[in-house]
Amino acid sequence: MQGVMQGRAAAGRGAHYTVGIDYGTNSVRALVVDVRTGEELGAGVFDYPSGARGILLDPEDPELARQNPQDYLDGLERSVREALGRAARHEAAGGDGFDPSRVIGVGVDTTGSTPIPVDAGGRPLGLQARFRDRPAAQVWLWKDHTSHADALRVTEIASALRPQYLAKCGGRYSSEWYWAKVLRCAQADPEVFDAAHTWVEHADWIPAVLTGTEHPERLRRGVCAAGHKALYHPDWGYPDEEFLAALDERLVRVGRTLPDRTYSVAEPAGRLTDDWAARLGLPAGIPVAVGAFDAHLGAVGSGVREGTLVKIIGTSTCDLMVAPMGRGVADIPGLCGVVPESVLPGAFGLEAGQSAVGDIFSWLVDAVRPANKGHAELTAEAERLRPGESGVLALDWWNGNRTVLVDQRLTGLMLGLTLSTTPAEMYRALVEATAFGARVIMERYEAYGVPVERIVNCGGISEKNPFVMQIYADVMGRPVQISRSAQTCALGAAVAGAVVAGAGAGGHADFGEATAAMTGVRDEAFTPIPAHQAVYDRLYGLYRRLHDAFGVPNNTGGDLYGVMKALLDVRDDALRGGAT
Amino acid sequence: MQGVMQGRAAAGRGAHYTVGIDYGTNSVRALVVDVRTGEELGAGVFDYPSGARGILLDPEDPELARQNPQDYLDGLERSVREALGRAARHEAAGGDGFDPSRVIGVGVDTTGSTPIPVDAGGRPLGLQARFRDRPAAQVWLWKDHTSHADALRVTEIASALRPQYLAKCGGRYSSEWYWAKVLRCAQADPEVFDAAHTWVEHADWIPAVLTGTEHPERLRRGVCAAGHKALYHPDWGYPDEEFLAALDERLVRVGRTLPDRTYSVAEPAGRLTDDWAARLGLPAGIPVAVGAFDAHLGAVGSGVREGTLVKIIGTSTCDLMVAPMGRGVADIPGLCGVVPESVLPGAFGLEAGQSAVGDIFSWLVDAVRPANKGHAELTAEAERLRPGESGVLALDWWNGNRTVLVDQRLTGLMLGLTLSTTPAEMYRALVEATAFGARVIMERYEAYGVPVERIVNCGGISEKNPFVMQIYADVMGRPVQISRSAQTCALGAAVAGAVVAGAGAGGHADFGEATAAMTGVRDEAFTPIPAHQAVYDRLYGLYRRLHDAFGVPNNTGGDLYGVMKALLDVRDDALRGGAT
Repeated sequence: MQGVMQGRAAAGRGAHYTVGIDYGTNSVRALVVDVRTGEELGAGVFDYPSGARGILLDPEDPELARQNPQDYLDGLERSVREALGRAARHEAAGGDGFDPSRVIGVGVDTTGSTPIPVDAGGRPLGLQARFRDRPAAQVWLWKDHTSHADALRVTEIASALRPQYLAKCGGRYSSEWYWAKVLRCAQADPEVFDAAHTWVEHADWIPAVLTGTEHPERLRRGVCAAGHKALYHPDWGYPDEEFLAALDERLVRVGRTLPDRTYSVAEPAGRLTDDWAARLGLPAGIPVAVGAFDAHLGAVGSGVREGTLVKIIGTSTCDLMVAPMGRGVADIPGLCGVVPESVLPGAFGLEAGQSAVGDIFSWLVDAVRPANKGHAELTAEAERLRPGESGVLALDWWNGNRTVLVDQRLTGLMLGLTLSTTPAEMYRALVEATAFGARVIMERYEAYGVPVERIVNCGGISEKNPFVMQIYADVMGRPVQISRSAQTCALGAAVAGAVVAGAGAGGHADFGEATAAMTGVRDEAFTPIPAHQAVYDRLYGLYRRLHDAFGVPNNTGGDLYGVMKALLDVRDDALRGGAT
Repeated sequence: MQGVMQGRAAAGRGAHYTVGIDYGTNSVRALVVDVRTGEELGAGVFDYPSGARGILLDPEDPELARQNPQDYLDGLERSVREALGRAARHEAAGGDGFDPSRVIGVGVDTTGSTPIPVDAGGRPLGLQARFRDRPAAQVWLWKDHTSHADALRVTEIASALRPQYLAKCGGRYSSEWYWAKVLRCAQADPEVFDAAHTWVEHADWIPAVLTGTEHPERLRRGVCAAGHKALYHPDWGYPDEEFLAALDERLVRVGRTLPDRTYSVAEPAGRLTDDWAARLGLPAGIPVAVGAFDAHLGAVGSGVREGTLVKIIGTSTCDLMVAPMGRGVADIPGLCGVVPESVLPGAFGLEAGQSAVGDIFSWLVDAVRPANKGHAELTAEAERLRPGESGVLALDWWNGNRTVLVDQRLTGLMLGLTLSTTPAEMYRALVEATAFGARVIMERYEAYGVPVERIVNCGGISEKNPFVMQIYADVMGRPVQISRSAQTCALGAAVAGAVVAGAGAGGHADFGEATAAMTGVRDEAFTPIPAHQAVYDRLYGLYRRLHDAFGVPNNTGGDLYGVMKALLDVRDDALRGGAT
């Protein structure tokens, strides 16, 4: 990679830049990237000011999680301006100074499915005075689980009427997704539902704002959100009226606002308006790529390709793969979707994920606060333990299970607790549980013909926590690499900005060229340690028994007598001089 | 009770006293009691100095728990002298000053099964220089679980050869018990095993020391330890040689050291020697009652009678009942024993228990240390929660399960954990789990024809924690009373001392008279709150499903899918205005 950077700099082409804008759960981040090298010249972060760390909560309903659309607009301006300011102060590679006039494109990613009810002009209801304090009129954040009953209803009705809809999104519809949330609003707050002309994904709304295409007639909706969360497929478009009517007659009206086709991130949503160009300090008229979910562009920013599983590990994870469209891919039960071009053009995008990962570790540190120890101290203590020696095993369902069970009505479990169990043992068990959950996902991919040759992890935990990464390598039995960038989602958005800008404008001709130039992995990688793998294979077997017993209806292998005993056997072997 | 006290004082009889000596897991306590009223004039406590809070541990084997016999001897002198000193400074009821010459008897209780390997003179091997650092030569504390494989072997061989042995101790032999420990020693340290002439329960050894009857030929072994832990029964005596040989040929030699008959606490082990009288500051020649387990004499100190379940709640619990011998009692699977006269003469003593209760609460406070909050703070926060609202459910197996599963290879489990679960919710779930475990025991008694009309709790948690007591009343659906004494085990031992002294010496003619005079309950009681009971009935159903799935081999009701969901339903009902 270093060679590529120098080679291009030596070629003497003038520098060009793109801006990637990444809307996370608690903040938005903007990143200025050198198109030739992927060098990150400046970043800006804006923490959403509303609610609890940007999330509007309901003390009477722990499943509700909304956001204020105004936070997104404020954050857009603040984060981009801050990123540009930092880039200007940056000593750019090759001696070129940064000049915002050389920014040639913008890309955007957001969380999702995070739909926003909007009026006939495309303006969020939550920005209107009459709805300002109405939870249903705000943004329905991905982790809002108020609609679990509605999700069940979507699954039931689709199973009966349109099984093909479900086949493309893993066989079960989730309460995190578009139609479940729209349906919930129709039930819970009909006034807001009636006031909403249509519902726009956060990932589609931001590019529309930047390009002045918010009006529903002009809005370009991305295939990523549509295909993974809203039952869209190129073969049939969005769900048909008969199906929507079976869910709720009132949904037919919403369905009529949805377009016949959607767009991939290789296509522009439009061009930056004069107004937003002035507000952001960017050239007017540069292309803004169609939006996608953070994880999908995170996979792009990690250099996803066939055989690579990209895990974006943060509060939760997304586990992305791509597979060439030419060969076709089976419908994979439990996945969040197999969607043409949802990650890269010309490939199926395959999405899976875990509903909580970093959030679980933070639960122990911030909610339980064992002896007031922080992540660093618990990590240091947990690292000294041998695999299996604690005898503690957990199910990583603190926020439900996204893949492969697609069930938010599941909860966290810890077992093997004894009077001598320590916080470090609990911490390690939680890390291991998320690794076991990751292995379930990997095995599901492989069972349906999508082999995993290497794993590229990205996200804050990947960079900062070699302890966690080694456990992932040991549990999953694959080499684990770490993405070079600390902000792969924003970088992936910047890659999309470079592709929609095109080679002629100083960007890239396609994603293959762009990711080769702009992304990469760190030199150091994590290789499975055979003795640890052997212990973790035993523990994983026990994890699977618990997983299937609590998570799979009518499962036949449900006899759990022996699980605690087998766990103690693993512990005793570890204590009596097993793996170190 | 008050009336009885005054009546007797008015009768003008001179005061007489007995001393109860109670050996717990971490300390020994002596108590000077007024025989007429049960008034406690003075107590002395001695913390065992060896090991970790008196327990010798092995960092490589978490199941090992031994004690130093010297601690018992040092504690005997120190605790009794301190109790007598305090009694002398006490303003005795009725204006009589305390005079140690008016002490008329001594009773002793200890933990168990806590066997001690002794030489041919009855002296513990651990007191001999050559064995001083040898774990196997020390006292094998009740909670030593190194012998779980040996316990399985006892169960298997007894099932095949002598099913009647097992029928009287619940159908499964425990790793906490006498023969499992002796067998383990034979396997693990044959040199110690060969050096041990016989094995003496701690409860039998202390009265023998006090009365100079340690020699195995003179030693009076109590029916309590023998019947509940060593397969003794009046119908057949100790196990026969064929059975012991089937366990291990070498056990036959140990079996030959055991007597044909045993004794109840209504009988004296002997009379206090001059030497010990001088060391303790008591009259020489007063009778010392045969020893029994702490829980059994705790039941006596709580005024146990037919229909009363006495729960001695400390680090663990014992759940004692009595049933008249005339009617007979079924063999009750999973109990720690149904033994004639093990609690009171003329009645079957029925013992059950939980392997950890207070220990589990202390695990959270002392090992996990959530936000460094103590019991008081967590209790205050947990008390404000409504039943079911946390959605957290636990299995109280942090130290295995004593009753009804008799399985030490079980471990603690918590389920229903979410990202918003708090330490107070965990604390409450642990309290509830121990209450559910208590209900399993109560229901087992009742299912076999021993009805529970009222519950009398005693032990530190009972006195200090009305929050826990109310949950017990709500979960168990019975009125819960609290024993008047703060040290019912030592009081029960003092009652035994009064009975062996006899009415002629100023003591009591029998246990009925003695407990009527010396024991009682507090005025305040805890009554089940119907709305809470309804919630706990739902949670208990879920607890039972987990209990049976993880604890019962080949159980048929093992489908756990739905447990987490049902728990969330209970939570949602509680949050949406259910029981308060």
